[in-house]
Amino acid sequence: MSNDFEYISDALGIIHEIMRLSRLLFNLSSHIEYYSKFPPTSFTLKSLIDFARDGDIKQSYKFLRVELLIRWSHMRKEMEYLPPKLLEMPSFKLVNSWYDQSYSEVLEFKNTEPDASTLRKFTETLVGIRKRHADVVSTLAQAYMEFEKVSLVSLIEKNRIQYFYDRFFMNRIGIRTLLYQHTLLFGDELPEHSQQAGIIDPCVDVVAVIGDAYSTAKYLFEHACYPVPKVEIESYNVKDHSTNPVTIVYIPSHIYHIVFELLKNSLRATVERYGLDAKEYPPVRIIIVKGHEDLTIQINDRGGGISRSKLSQLFHYMYSTAPKYLVDGTENSKKKPSIAGLGYGLPIARLYAQYFQGNLKLASIENYGTSAYVSLQATAENASERLPIFCKSRYSYTTKKGSDWT
Amino acid sequence: MSNDFEYISDALGIIHEIMRLSRLLFNLSSHIEYYSKFPPTSFTLKSLIDFARDGDIKQSYKFLRVELLIRWSHMRKEMEYLPPKLLEMPSFKLVNSWYDQSYSEVLEFKNTEPDASTLRKFTETLVGIRKRHADVVSTLAQAYMEFEKVSLVSLIEKNRIQYFYDRFFMNRIGIRTLLYQHTLLFGDELPEHSQQAGIIDPCVDVVAVIGDAYSTAKYLFEHACYPVPKVEIESYNVKDHSTNPVTIVYIPSHIYHIVFELLKNSLRATVERYGLDAKEYPPVRIIIVKGHEDLTIQINDRGGGISRSKLSQLFHYMYSTAPKYLVDGTENSKKKPSIAGLGYGLPIARLYAQYFQGNLKLASIENYGTSAYVSLQATAENASERLPIFCKSRYSYTTKKGSDWT
Repeated sequence: MSNDFEYISDALGIIHEIMRLSRLLFNLSSHIEYYSKFPPTSFTLKSLIDFARDGDIKQSYKFLRVELLIRWSHMRKEMEYLPPKLLEMPSFKLVNSWYDQSYSEVLEFKNTEPDASTLRKFTETLVGIRKRHADVVSTLAQAYMEFEKVSLVSLIEKNRIQYFYDRFFMNRIGIRTLLYQHTLLFGDELPEHSQQAGIIDPCVDVVAVIGDAYSTAKYLFEHACYPVPKVEIESYNVKDHSTNPVTIVYIPSHIYHIVFELLKNSLRATVERYGLDAKEYPPVRIIIVKGHEDLTIQINDRGGGISRSKLSQLFHYMYSTAPKYLVDGTENSKKKPSIAGLGYGLPIARLYAQYFQGNLKLASIENYGTSAYVSLQATAENASERLPIFCKSRYSYTTKKGSDWT
Repeated sequence: MSNDFEYISDALGIIHEIMRLSRLLFNLSSHIEYYSKFPPTSFTLKSLIDFARDGDIKQSYKFLRVELLIRWSHMRKEMEYLPPKLLEMPSFKLVNSWYDQSYSEVLEFKNTEPDASTLRKFTETLVGIRKRHADVVSTLAQAYMEFEKVSLVSLIEKNRIQYFYDRFFMNRIGIRTLLYQHTLLFGDELPEHSQQAGIIDPCVDVVAVIGDAYSTAKYLFEHACYPVPKVEIESYNVKDHSTNPVTIVYIPSHIYHIVFELLKNSLRATVERYGLDAKEYPPVRIIIVKGHEDLTIQINDRGGGISRSKLSQLFHYMYSTAPKYLVDGTENSKKKPSIAGLGYGLPIARLYAQYFQGNLKLASIENYGTSAYVSLQATAENASERLPIFCKSRYSYTTKKGSDWT
């Protein structure tokens, strides 16, 4: 008898959970539909800094509880146009469950007045969301790998996934920036440096950040018993006509992320070109120029270059360059970065560069070397967020376009 | 009485001419419709060299009298999608009249057997076509200027014209290559060097061609009392692992055209950056590397660079960068090239680089300098013509796409 009761109890529990999830999904769908009709609000670094100085937590709360839903909703709508099989992959479902959870949590603040308790709960919620979504990139990489194992991916599907992943990851950079701003300005965590406004530093010392990235790469290489070529840095402050260090209003961790990825590639290519036993290596030469419009970081190596046919593939989200991660499909995914690097390093680095209207470009001379060009906006007023907006017509053109060149 | 007769005679003459032109146009339309359904035949430099060695004039005749019509017909079909007002501009009509004439002349050989007299007449016709179309680029530039004077050009129209001009000029490069091959191999003109197969040199000395381009630029500059920075050239023959000069199967005048344009820009930018009275100028540094897949020519200057916002515009066919030509709308257009250069220089140079599956890219550091990367296919088998194919669907997507980024 008790077994029957347990069985019925379990069954009822499962039914209850299914109904709860269905209500959750149904409610989310209508909210996603609603919020996706609003455009996301794009900030400049200037306005973010100003808000960090003048704004208050209630304003931030009222804004974010809507803006997060808008930005997430746009990407949710775009997901409908991905290959259906991709959406069914376990890792993709895992990522979606994180977003469903986070979306619901923010939704609960919809009509709640910002008293002290609510504000504290909201900030804690944002910290939780930040942590929950820490492994989104690697998990979506895993999803792509799973998809490629069960399905031959057509060229059109590849292009759509490339298009979507770029936008989804860019969206994520934007959301995490807003999350960090709120939690660092109004929460219990402290920013890395006291001069910072949240994660933004009004005066990033670019040479210093590059030095940090080099130190970390050097440490990694030495730890793996790998030789490390030297780096030479020149910097020019043309905008100020001065010999002052080159500085910029920016998020230092973004610059660090971009440069670390490029430096790692340049150093490794140089060692592979000249061999592990070479007596010396040509240094990686870095030139930083702060001009009137652009701050450019040029990273030059003699690492043997890349042929043109392979250059374009470097920015593709593909199985062959997927991260060397162990992901066990739960929320406790283990990460083991290696010298070989994360397969998604270059496309993600480019997104970081493009996020505030900059760019990352590679130019290479096959069998000689490569130059990477990182451009950032020199003025904070021009550094506005580049955010994806769901645009149905982009997905609706005929898939068979025909080739217009031989 | 005689006046009346003259009047009637003139009127009949005009009517006769109108009827002849109408028949001409009507016939051409049906032929254009017919030939545009066939794809153009794309050659590699290898196959062109082989034909130069093994082929004969009758084969060339039979092939060209059809291929020319096919290649012209594709572009004629695309013209239908240009802004109608552009097609009405005097300079555009002039260019079209040249193409109508040439098309008709080639059509006359349609069913004619290749006896000696026909072959000679055909070769003369091709020489005539080459000369007739010598000023197509400048005249179409004039057409664009005329169009911009009478009409506000929308962004969509600008994109269409850009798309069309790139393809039309590329088509022209291809046709002129075929014309030159036939007339130099089988006609009375002699190729520039005896080793050449038509206009193709199986062994272009790249450093020598660049040296020629520099000499011409130097002459131009000195002629205009303008100082000339020096040039430094390094070359690496990685493919052969040798210290032999870097050579390539190519059309030397194409390489010359590309490098001359880039050198001119680099030299001028350097002088403008440091001033006419500077004691010395940083040299323009050129690196040539022949790798396994690519032959790369990198041209580096310290001429102050270009901001990112302006860089993309350099390849646009626009009024503000139109050639400084005097064109009086007849077949006797006068040309006055200046140090300021031809406004269409860069986009055309890029087409020359892309024609045999290469490319031309600019990377710049604002307020510092610019690097131009010219890539050519290192092997003649991979150097196939890149030809436009009329593809209706490319023109049929909705014009209002909506923006998918902020």
